[in-house]
Amino acid sequence: MRDQTSEKGSLCEINTKRTKREKTNKCAFYKHKGNFEWQGIKNEPYKTKGNEWVNIIRRVLIGTHGESVKFHVRYFEIFPEGNSSFEKHKHEHVVICVKGEGIVRTGRSERQMGFMDTVYISPNIPHKFLNPFKEPFGFICIVNAKRDRPKLLKK
Amino acid sequence: MRDQTSEKGSLCEINTKRTKREKTNKCAFYKHKGNFEWQGIKNEPYKTKGNEWVNIIRRVLIGTHGESVKFHVRYFEIFPEGNSSFEKHKHEHVVICVKGEGIVRTGRSERQMGFMDTVYISPNIPHKFLNPFKEPFGFICIVNAKRDRPKLLKK
Repeated sequence: MRDQTSEKGSLCEINTKRTKREKTNKCAFYKHKGNFEWQGIKNEPYKTKGNEWVNIIRRVLIGTHGESVKFHVRYFEIFPEGNSSFEKHKHEHVVICVKGEGIVRTGRSERQMGFMDTVYISPNIPHKFLNPFKEPFGFICIVNAKRDRPKLLKK
Repeated sequence: MRDQTSEKGSLCEINTKRTKREKTNKCAFYKHKGNFEWQGIKNEPYKTKGNEWVNIIRRVLIGTHGESVKFHVRYFEIFPEGNSSFEKHKHEHVVICVKGEGIVRTGRSERQMGFMDTVYISPNIPHKFLNPFKEPFGFICIVNAKRDRPKLLKK
């Protein structure tokens, strides 16, 4: 299981803490409290270490409560001037912008993302998310539950 | 592979048609054209047959373009007075409301959903989505790529 993180670890987000919420595979309703915060979902840093990323929080909606799904669903918010790591890995990303605007860099390509713009990042494509704008950039990011550890890249 | 549908078929959506878009596992950007329509993503009926559901369209964002992910991402919109089938199956649902309001029924429970409210439906829970409101109810629905066929239930 080397190189696999499953529910445990993270990658594009190296935070393995679990909430105290009971870990049962039962139906759950996560009420949106407004401003992209949900009842029962806590704020976490994007990763617990590393200085190649700045100004990001994450909220794991699905994946750490005992769910049996083959995927995890997370919300990330990049504050103005913030960015994610520039990295690549075997696992794919699906990202749907739900708040503000941002930039997705995939390989040498850059695209601006606004509300509901959706990007699929295929395996081993170097990628990075940036927010050069004045408002926070929020997006839903879906990944396989079992996934490999990212490799950090130089610019 | 009996009881498995993978990319092919559907269940909570029995539409097996494929688009003419090339089936390659490459990065893709689906620009939101407004009103929850995306460039390169077509409108489909919720299911191709059956009369237990009414007034629903679906748009498959991720899952039919050759992607290697273990999950599919779809957008559904239920028009006023519409509803999905009442059904159950082994595979789970994750649903995030992105437009309007609706009702999710899970077992004997009913919850109203508004923007960003998120529901996890665990295996074998009878469920149904309804729109008793005046505006369309739109949501992102994420499921495992390989999943079993739903069993339709009586009310």
